[in-house]
Amino acid sequence: MSSKGLLIVVSGPSGAGKGTICKELLNQNPQIKVSISATTRQPRNGEIKGINYFFIDKNKFELMIKNDDFLEYATVYDNYYGTPKEYVMKNLEDGNDVLLEIDIVGALQIKDRFKDAVFIFILPPSLEELKNRIVGRGTESLADIEKRHGSAISEIEQFIKYDYAVINEDVLKAVGDIEAIIRAEKCRVLRRTEEIQSKF
Amino acid sequence: MSSKGLLIVVSGPSGAGKGTICKELLNQNPQIKVSISATTRQPRNGEIKGINYFFIDKNKFELMIKNDDFLEYATVYDNYYGTPKEYVMKNLEDGNDVLLEIDIVGALQIKDRFKDAVFIFILPPSLEELKNRIVGRGTESLADIEKRHGSAISEIEQFIKYDYAVINEDVLKAVGDIEAIIRAEKCRVLRRTEEIQSKF
Repeated sequence: MSSKGLLIVVSGPSGAGKGTICKELLNQNPQIKVSISATTRQPRNGEIKGINYFFIDKNKFELMIKNDDFLEYATVYDNYYGTPKEYVMKNLEDGNDVLLEIDIVGALQIKDRFKDAVFIFILPPSLEELKNRIVGRGTESLADIEKRHGSAISEIEQFIKYDYAVINEDVLKAVGDIEAIIRAEKCRVLRRTEEIQSKF
Repeated sequence: MSSKGLLIVVSGPSGAGKGTICKELLNQNPQIKVSISATTRQPRNGEIKGINYFFIDKNKFELMIKNDDFLEYATVYDNYYGTPKEYVMKNLEDGNDVLLEIDIVGALQIKDRFKDAVFIFILPPSLEELKNRIVGRGTESLADIEKRHGSAISEIEQFIKYDYAVINEDVLKAVGDIEAIIRAEKCRVLRRTEEIQSKF
């Protein structure tokens, strides 16, 4: 009997560094599968189909919505974004852990339908540091920076709906926290009941 | 603000190897404090006061019961055994993690009064292996072995009341599981709410 895999949902406010953390987590744990989102927006320069996104057209996306083929989806600036269900479910059934790096709204949609998933919220070390990071990108106007910083603050309030909070003071430490969470979750009695009852 | 420590309660059936695992856990993590039980029984050869047990007389023990000075206590063969509350509470308040290796009845008493503790159940890899280990001690008669094996089987059913189940296939792996559980528990949103709300 192979135990089912773990669905690991990582999200957090813009600027918390969840992308960097997830990349390093996958580098160190290549056995973890990563879910790729689907979108109807056009590929940007350098984006590769099946690596960054699955690029599909609007009709296809709406048919998939109708068929309940998404774990979650949302509309952003007239484009759809969503997490195709099939890849995630197949891997979990095969006993693979699946990582989903996703925004807060999407994560909460998944929480409603997928009680077994583990929800991890990434936080910046402080509000000052969050602002420094947003400024540091150097790609945004002052107004955009203020807007992004303001929305990050209101996003942070959502941490309370998650199972775990990881503070990104140091990328490797944050990755270590997530690895510990995954290992600990596999020991949870609620996940091992069947295995133990079949053994003893 | 220093966060409060974690009370880690480790128990499991006789022969699962919880003593060996706890010893190795403490070797590798000398910052973890270990709670010492009090008993009214006489010290055995080689037992040291304050290391193996606190040896106290019956009057003192009963006064402590009356004063609600135990986290849990029990009577075994006319002797009292109990976990003094003061040492545990003081260390938790100081932010130290405290390990309690304790039998299943005692662990469940603590669970009733101490919702914040983490309850870890140690299991043998199989019933056959459990029997081998009990036989391997070589100190017991066949009848005693059968009795101990039988009671271990009924003790195993209690795993369902714990938070985590660690299977002792390998001592170092089991210690690694417990270390991951401790690290993950410190990231639980329920334990970090105050810290995060004071920061953001």
